[in-house]
Amino acid sequence: MLKGCNLIGQTECNEGDQSLLAFSTVTRSVLPKNFFIATTREINNAVLKAEIAFEVYKDITGEIKAIFLDTIAEEIMAVGDDLIQRAILETGLQEARLIGERGRTIGQLKLFADLLREGSWVEAVIDTALPHRKPFPHADIRKMQVPIGPVVVFGASNFPFAFSTAGGDTASALAAGNPVIVKAHASHLGTNELVAMAINNAAKKCNMPDGVFSFVIGPGAETGMQLVKHPGVKAVGFTGSYKGGMAIYKAAVNERETPIPVYAEMSSINPVLLLPSKLKRDATTLAEQIAGSVTLGTGQFCTNPGLIFLIEDESADIFIKRFTEVLSNESPATMLNSDICLNYYKSRRIIAEQNGVITLFKGNDFSEVYQGSTALFLTSARDFINNPKLQNEMFGPATLLVKCKHALELLQAIESLHGQLTGTVIADNADVSNYLKCIDVLYTKVGRIVYNGVPTGVEVCQAMVHGGPFPSTTDSRTTSVGADAIKRFVRPLCLQDCPDEFLPEALRNENPLNLMRKVNGSYTRESL
Amino acid sequence: MLKGCNLIGQTECNEGDQSLLAFSTVTRSVLPKNFFIATTREINNAVLKAEIAFEVYKDITGEIKAIFLDTIAEEIMAVGDDLIQRAILETGLQEARLIGERGRTIGQLKLFADLLREGSWVEAVIDTALPHRKPFPHADIRKMQVPIGPVVVFGASNFPFAFSTAGGDTASALAAGNPVIVKAHASHLGTNELVAMAINNAAKKCNMPDGVFSFVIGPGAETGMQLVKHPGVKAVGFTGSYKGGMAIYKAAVNERETPIPVYAEMSSINPVLLLPSKLKRDATTLAEQIAGSVTLGTGQFCTNPGLIFLIEDESADIFIKRFTEVLSNESPATMLNSDICLNYYKSRRIIAEQNGVITLFKGNDFSEVYQGSTALFLTSARDFINNPKLQNEMFGPATLLVKCKHALELLQAIESLHGQLTGTVIADNADVSNYLKCIDVLYTKVGRIVYNGVPTGVEVCQAMVHGGPFPSTTDSRTTSVGADAIKRFVRPLCLQDCPDEFLPEALRNENPLNLMRKVNGSYTRESL
Repeated sequence: MLKGCNLIGQTECNEGDQSLLAFSTVTRSVLPKNFFIATTREINNAVLKAEIAFEVYKDITGEIKAIFLDTIAEEIMAVGDDLIQRAILETGLQEARLIGERGRTIGQLKLFADLLREGSWVEAVIDTALPHRKPFPHADIRKMQVPIGPVVVFGASNFPFAFSTAGGDTASALAAGNPVIVKAHASHLGTNELVAMAINNAAKKCNMPDGVFSFVIGPGAETGMQLVKHPGVKAVGFTGSYKGGMAIYKAAVNERETPIPVYAEMSSINPVLLLPSKLKRDATTLAEQIAGSVTLGTGQFCTNPGLIFLIEDESADIFIKRFTEVLSNESPATMLNSDICLNYYKSRRIIAEQNGVITLFKGNDFSEVYQGSTALFLTSARDFINNPKLQNEMFGPATLLVKCKHALELLQAIESLHGQLTGTVIADNADVSNYLKCIDVLYTKVGRIVYNGVPTGVEVCQAMVHGGPFPSTTDSRTTSVGADAIKRFVRPLCLQDCPDEFLPEALRNENPLNLMRKVNGSYTRESL
Repeated sequence: MLKGCNLIGQTECNEGDQSLLAFSTVTRSVLPKNFFIATTREINNAVLKAEIAFEVYKDITGEIKAIFLDTIAEEIMAVGDDLIQRAILETGLQEARLIGERGRTIGQLKLFADLLREGSWVEAVIDTALPHRKPFPHADIRKMQVPIGPVVVFGASNFPFAFSTAGGDTASALAAGNPVIVKAHASHLGTNELVAMAINNAAKKCNMPDGVFSFVIGPGAETGMQLVKHPGVKAVGFTGSYKGGMAIYKAAVNERETPIPVYAEMSSINPVLLLPSKLKRDATTLAEQIAGSVTLGTGQFCTNPGLIFLIEDESADIFIKRFTEVLSNESPATMLNSDICLNYYKSRRIIAEQNGVITLFKGNDFSEVYQGSTALFLTSARDFINNPKLQNEMFGPATLLVKCKHALELLQAIESLHGQLTGTVIADNADVSNYLKCIDVLYTKVGRIVYNGVPTGVEVCQAMVHGGPFPSTTDSRTTSVGADAIKRFVRPLCLQDCPDEFLPEALRNENPLNLMRKVNGSYTRESL
């Protein structure tokens, strides 16, 4: 039974008189439940509780934080099928996909729990004293990563579990030792509540301080911005549109007395280089494989391949023919929400209207049933290079083919690319040798290079980078998926000549946590 | 023989018709040499050459970059006494201090050379493939840190070697694999040229690509801003005033199509907590030690202790008496430049004028010979908490004592602090236990905590953090001193299913560089 409230620390609150309703693209109707928009007082209380909780939570041991994350995972599973059914209604995603995504979310929580138990993520570095060094003694200097304070998380509509309420941003911020305030995504308010209550149950079971987790309901431009501008907030995680991400990023720099980091993952068209020798061998198979990646989840992935480069030749024609066939045979499918559906058709109309763009295929241009149909466009490298609009994202099952006359044109097209989450290289060894320069430049444009695969399917692991140069994110130094996502919500703290008994455990001589540390320049788990 | 030119890659250029002159606070006169302001064309050429150099330099091995840094160190030493004498004239600093600072600069270059030779700083992380995992196979995923492109460095006036042309920003950016463009500090143009030419000699000897290093002359607001706004520039390092740092930071976010990171170290007053039990034992010695830190280098250090908290009692009075004596016995000394001298007297006048501030001692209020005299002010915790102006930096040999009635007032005063580079705790074990909460809050305000020492004297080592929460820097996630300064100028790049032969050496199966890597979650130097 949904409550429609905000959660301010452990307290359910609905002080306001304005509310939002969830709309289902599946039933094509408003769902029967009012979700109350948080008042300014509720928002301020959420931050205040988070600040107070931080005083305790920042010092909680890795083992206890790990138990908290594990318990969140258990509580989410305990919601059972109600969670999946509500998410289907609110997102239009298939049951199997949502069950898989729930598993991924649990996996993320467990990855961070493991990272906390191992412990070395704090990057302990120790330089011992040299009291007799001339002309001045060398002090004992030690450092480690410490949490920063309350983190605000804006969930994404396209991953209602894995990039939302208990998604990677929340998991990594909590793992680092920071309280989290989620701005609930308006597109899946019921799903958010069910997950949030699971987190809250876990917080209570684990005796976490009140305020370690809150969520508030309301429009991003008002409720969200109040959080972003609040002096008590120390960082923001966001996954969504370029417009939304940039508004938050600029507010965090310009409209606060103290600027804070904003990790916004925004917009990427994920170029694929289809190189000729490989293409010659596998044109048909590749067409089918890449078409599958374009249409996966009705194209609603940030790593959806929205741009495909090929060199003009016979194999390219074979590829294009089969690619067109496969895409045109794909049935339209329900999209996440009405805004995404409308924006998808609008953005693909804009691409279609650009000079030099040929529409090879497109399904129905609009759908009252909020379904996304596939589309395929073709342009020349020249036109692509000269028209930055061709780099605008179409968030849905559409892609743009770019035909290059030769390697030089391909190189110039790659040089003109904006920053991307991923770049895919479809190539055999001969191609790699022949197109080294093109691949080299592609490396400078992206966060992740995929060889002979598809960019969709972001593995949650130690080595993942889900991030990349602007405008794919606001901060290419980080990743929002994988173990290193935790690094976004910490800063280094250095302790000079601190008596051993007052040092945090991670920095003590005896190394009680058995961490891998850098001691006088060498990596070791030895005690001092 | 100084040339007064800019260095655009390896080419000496003076295309412009406007020039700057160096002024010596020692001779109190303009020095005889025109330094030509870079034209827009020269600035653009410097960036273009850096971009082209990057294509080669980013892939140069750690060993060769290490040789380059070592050679820069040798070439700086080879300039010999001319460098020291010019720096004395341009900065008013003492010979011994400048010789020491040159040694520190050489030490920084060698620290990064060692880091490159060891190699593990690239943070190689490898997750091997699980081709049979269900429901989907797990790809082979590897990542490492890679350089980002041309870096602009604004040197600081107060460290003409260690934080200027070949200082920590330049050394760490070059070590990471990025070309550097230095905006020469107007306060030591001759010193800059001598050091820059040494870097250029090293670049030539080591066959570095033309453009790996450039420097340009001109005012920060024009020449500097042209660089900051240039699309080819990928990051900025800055050490200087709050006003200058914030102008660069905001321009980098708001006046560029692609925002870039700005590492500005700006303003810090470095609070010292003098706790009562320790003070009772050592009031006189502590007064002398801390006074020495206040007046070191005529107070022109970013870590100068500008704020001292004490609890009212008899020992506090003994401390204050002796502290006043020592400071008032200190002779005025020449400051770095006329602006710094004028600003020092202005800022200390503003502190003196605030409600509730008592001037315990102050030397001459202005000096035509550009000398800074000491000053000591006293206020109450109440006044300190209520007046943010009392947190403005006095860059020079002055400090503010804040008397607290009791631990609670001390706690409130610490809670009101802005972000700082350092916080110092003068305490015995009893004090630490009694003032745990105060110390705990101080930890959240600073980049480095010093126990029973002084904050001046920033050791160049692996564990140093010279950074801290805003406004001490624009980015508390980083340090500008020590090994981790290199992390400011890299980003992670992930390679998925890349054939071993095309992987960078750091990520290859056989681990040819013998790096410490994280493989499937475990730290190891083993090959795969």
